[in-house]
This record gives sequence, structure tokens and C-alpha cells, in this order.
Amino acid sequence: MLENASRTDLATLGEFGLIKHITQHFNVENKSTLKGVGDDCAVIDAGENCKLITTDLLVEGVHFDLTYVPLKHLGYKAVVVNLSDVYAMNGKPEQITVSIAMSNRFSLEAIEELYAGIKAACEEYNVDLVGGDTSSSVLGLMISITAIGVAPREKIAYRNGAKETDLICVSGDLGGAYMGLQILEREKQIFKENKEIQPDLEGNDYILERQLKPEARRDIIDLMAKHNVVPTAMIDVSDGLASELFHICTQSNVGCRIYDNKIPIDTETFGRAEDFNLEPLTIALNGGEDYELLFTVKQSDFETINQWAEITVIGHITEKAEGLNLVTQTGSFIELKARGWDAFSK
Amino acid sequence: MLENASRTDLATLGEFGLIKHITQHFNVENKSTLKGVGDDCAVIDAGENCKLITTDLLVEGVHFDLTYVPLKHLGYKAVVVNLSDVYAMNGKPEQITVSIAMSNRFSLEAIEELYAGIKAACEEYNVDLVGGDTSSSVLGLMISITAIGVAPREKIAYRNGAKETDLICVSGDLGGAYMGLQILEREKQIFKENKEIQPDLEGNDYILERQLKPEARRDIIDLMAKHNVVPTAMIDVSDGLASELFHICTQSNVGCRIYDNKIPIDTETFGRAEDFNLEPLTIALNGGEDYELLFTVKQSDFETINQWAEITVIGHITEKAEGLNLVTQTGSFIELKARGWDAFSK
Repeated sequence: MLENASRTDLATLGEFGLIKHITQHFNVENKSTLKGVGDDCAVIDAGENCKLITTDLLVEGVHFDLTYVPLKHLGYKAVVVNLSDVYAMNGKPEQITVSIAMSNRFSLEAIEELYAGIKAACEEYNVDLVGGDTSSSVLGLMISITAIGVAPREKIAYRNGAKETDLICVSGDLGGAYMGLQILEREKQIFKENKEIQPDLEGNDYILERQLKPEARRDIIDLMAKHNVVPTAMIDVSDGLASELFHICTQSNVGCRIYDNKIPIDTETFGRAEDFNLEPLTIALNGGEDYELLFTVKQSDFETINQWAEITVIGHITEKAEGLNLVTQTGSFIELKARGWDAFSK
Repeated sequence: MLENASRTDLATLGEFGLIKHITQHFNVENKSTLKGVGDDCAVIDAGENCKLITTDLLVEGVHFDLTYVPLKHLGYKAVVVNLSDVYAMNGKPEQITVSIAMSNRFSLEAIEELYAGIKAACEEYNVDLVGGDTSSSVLGLMISITAIGVAPREKIAYRNGAKETDLICVSGDLGGAYMGLQILEREKQIFKENKEIQPDLEGNDYILERQLKPEARRDIIDLMAKHNVVPTAMIDVSDGLASELFHICTQSNVGCRIYDNKIPIDTETFGRAEDFNLEPLTIALNGGEDYELLFTVKQSDFETINQWAEITVIGHITEKAEGLNLVTQTGSFIELKARGWDAFSK
């Protein structure tokens, strides 16, 4: 039944296209479903507060490479990327479920390592493991995690609330996780060619940690709560700044202008990008897995936000007709393209 | 890092052993977590009501075989098995998330078939698809579904509430799904040996439907609500009656006695078991995937329950010291063993 006369390759749609295509005919019937597909989390009515639900699937050979990713780090990261989605709704994660499928290549000791990382993340972020499933697999390791969070209804930050003149802000710095991955891939290639050469990872601590053990920006959510700042829109940077800006602008029905000299890039990221003959700005715009928060706030929040060392204002929202633009230091406008990361093009 | 000096095969623990082993060091920290690992669903405080969370992972080559399972049926079943877990808590499912990983062997049309089944189940059970993830995979298809349900706190049926003298009840009949699988496997073997022989599935409609398109027992939950019956304990029969009874008795700290002549077995299941030289009772006790509800009620509910055609009282709860026993028509006691189904022994 898989050999249909009509056959369309999945790669032709891309991940976002595929999700849109397969979910377009699903209707929302329950009044408890406040938000379905299309944001960082689904939002479910739960009395005074709302529950936030998000899920992520990590597949060996697609999302991670165990030749250089320690299982403990993988477990930690697998949890963190889900928590990041809850924070991106301005929520607080409280529970996770973890399902894993693994081939008989994995020993109990290997799985213990994976769960040690999952436990470390649960403890760091004060989240409870409440369920899951385990199975064998024919090949490799797969991890499916669902996170459940909570937020007061009026504080939830969707992707569709950005308004003209709102400021565009981003936490931390961008592109580091991508450059960390390039270092790991380079050393893997060198090792494959000559097994006697030990990996040279020196001087790359920051970007390697960004790739192997990212953290979710709970601190930013706490800061916002403390100072009573509610973002008009928010998303986490998992597929690259340009891609996430594209989501916010499309769903909010607005345009934007960001400034190239405002994009936060760490010196280590910058240096390694140059070593690899890559344009640091391109890496910051399109490198994924930073798990920083990208959000918009009203102009009136500027003075508060401006005092937070971890936040950079990188531009502002415009009317839709202007499109999405990167303004260079010479004053020219470059149209932003959402390249992002595509699991089906690999 | 997978080549540890110490290496324990996963198969030595079994699925329940593995889950227990890896979750034993996780603590519950959030007061909203009312029940974590160890029941059909996790239970999360949500104001007036509670939210119920359950998740299941289906892996090609382990849980399903696409040579005889149509993708549409697979999608339907993948949803239903999760909803069944919500009903098994005496809850009402309202949302699901669906994550899939698939190799490039699958076309868009194949995925559309899968989602047509998912949609049919959503419509049948009035459940909303609210999120998910899609990815490529190196080999085969994997489906990870999480269901979210709701129930008033005082009506939730855990596994641990069965008390001495409570009646043990089961819905529908047992063993059919297992016999359906035997038919499908037999025809697959015949087809492999001679490609010109078409599968002979006649006269097996009921058991094939039990295997390929099971339903969750929402009707029983509705009946209970209508007649104000709250089970003292409940579980769905996914791994076989004996295995589920074992869960209820262990967690409730009780024993049980069930009667062999009370176990409901459909005539088609009975006939096919005999054709295959299998003991029908053994199939009913240990065949999985029936998705019936196994529950206990107070003796005072007997008159109400006894009028429900779809429910059979199969025995009663005893003190723990008696153990788990099957009483035969000749009056002898046979100790029940939970064999169940083990994903790691395959």
C-alpha cells in the first residue's frame, strides 16, 4: 500500500509545509482547547490557569550523533528543548513524559546515562517526570518528550500578538550552538581519517556547551514576572533567528526591521565562524538550537528591558507591507529569508 | 561510550522492570503532580478538575507490521490506545499530540493515509489534535502520541484502590485481538512462501477488527457516570488480563480470585484458538491489545453492574496472602502469572 501510483516526496514540502498540510483538516471541538497547532505550545483551559503542552522528537542520525554527543548530555538537552518551548509561552514547566525506543545495541548502563541527564535537567528546572513509554527499536535511539507547563491565561505570550512599533528583543547571543556543531563535525571527520589524532576542542568551551548542554531561559521569564513585563509575542530560537522572526511576523500579520549591528554574537562564535570562512551574521541569523528567547514588547517597556544585561533590542515591528528586513550599517535593506533547519532535507 | 566495561542487556529487565529501574530515583517536586509514573495516566492538578496525561510509542517492526496493517487503521489504533488509557482513569480525553518519524520510503500520500486514520479517531472520540512533531528517520515509521484528558478529582480511578470483597469486572470479551494477529501472521507467512496465494481472511471479521481497528470503551465510562458508579480501581487491558490483574493487586496490596468459566471469550476467538491448537483461556488471560476495561467495584454496585450487558463479573478481590488465583470449574486453584507482552524480548 506504500507503492501508490501517486507519490510525493516528503522533502518537497519541508517540515513546516508538511505539518500544515496534514493538520489543515483537523478542527478544534473541545472548548478547553484554547490554542491547537501553530505555537510553541498548545494551550488548554484548566480553570484559573492554563496548561501548556509541547512535544519534541529526537531521532539518532537525524537530530544527534552519538559519536560525539555523550548520552547524559543528550538526555539533558532533550528535556531542555521542551522546557524552552514552555518558557516561550511565558509559562512554567512542571511535568514531562519521556518515551524512548532503542535498539539492542544499547545496554542498561547506556540508558542509565541517558536518564541521568534527564534527571539532572528535571532537578535543575524543578520538573517532574510523570510518565512515558519504552520500547525496543529496529535501529538506533529515539526520544520523544512531552512537557506540561502552567501559566495564568492573561500572561501567555503567543506568536501572534506583535504590533507595529513593538520592540524586538532577543536573550543571550546567537549562532554559538551552530558553530559548536561545526567543531564537533570537523573533529569527527579528522578522527575518521586518522584514528590516532585526538579531537582538538580547546578554546571552544562556550560554543561546545551551547551545542551539547544548552539551557532554557527560565531566568528571562523570572525577570519578566518580577518586573511585570508581558511580551506581546514570544518564541524560542530553535530553528534560527530569521525563521522565528518569520513565524512571529506571519502570525502577527506584521513586518519587521532588525539591525545587523545589534544582533548579539559571542566573540568565540565570531572567531570560529571566521576560521570556517563563514559569515558570522549569517550563522547568527540561520544557525539553530540556540534556545534563546525572541520576543516583542511595547515601546513603553523599553526602559525596563534596557536594564537587563541578558537582553538585546535588535529592531522593531513594522506594518506588514514593509516585509521582513535586515538593515545594514550602510543603511541598505536586505530581505530576510527563513532558511531554518529542515529535518527532511538531510 | 556505549562500549562500557559493564554491560547489561535490556532484555534481562523486561519493560516493567526497566521503567521501574530508570524512574526509581526521580522525585516528585511540584504540588500539581498528583500522580506520576505507575498508572494508566499521570494526574495533574488543574483547579476544579484534574488533567490526565498518557503517552504511547509505536515502532514499526516492533509494534506493527505494515505488510498487513493499513496505514489508516494504524493511525486510528495509535490514537485509540492512548484514549483507552484516559478512560481507564475514568476520565474524558480531550486533546492529543502526535509525533511521527518516518524514513524516505514513505510518500506524502502514505502519511496522508496515516493522518486520515488519526483524524477519524479524533472525530469518533471528539478529541482535538493540538500539537506534535515530524521528523525523518533512518529506518521505518515511529509514532509517539500523548493524550490529555480531564476528570473531577474524586472520580479518578487509580490502580491502587481495590479492596477485599470488591467485585472484579471486565468489559466486552478477551483474546480476540491476539487471535486476529495470529490470522494475519499466518497469511503473511503463506504469502511469503507463495506470492500467488491471496490471503484467506474469511470468517474472521470480528477478531481482525479487534486487532486492526480496536475501539476504546468510552461507552462504559458513560454508563458509569450515568449510574453514578465509581470503580475502586481500573486499568485497560493492553498487555493481557493476567498482567493487568497483577498491576491492580500489587498496587492495591490485595489478592484476587477469578473464575475460568466467567472469562468472556467470543465464539470466533474460541474457534480460531482451537484451530491453532491454542487454549482459548490462555489466550484470553495473556493475549494483549484488547483495550477492554478491567475494574473493581464495591459489592453494593453489583445490582447496577449486573444489568450492563457489556460487563462480566469475573471474580473478586481477596486478602493479599491468598495471592492471585484462577479457580477452575473443578474447584482447583491455579496461580495466575503475569506474562503480558514484552517489547524487549522480541
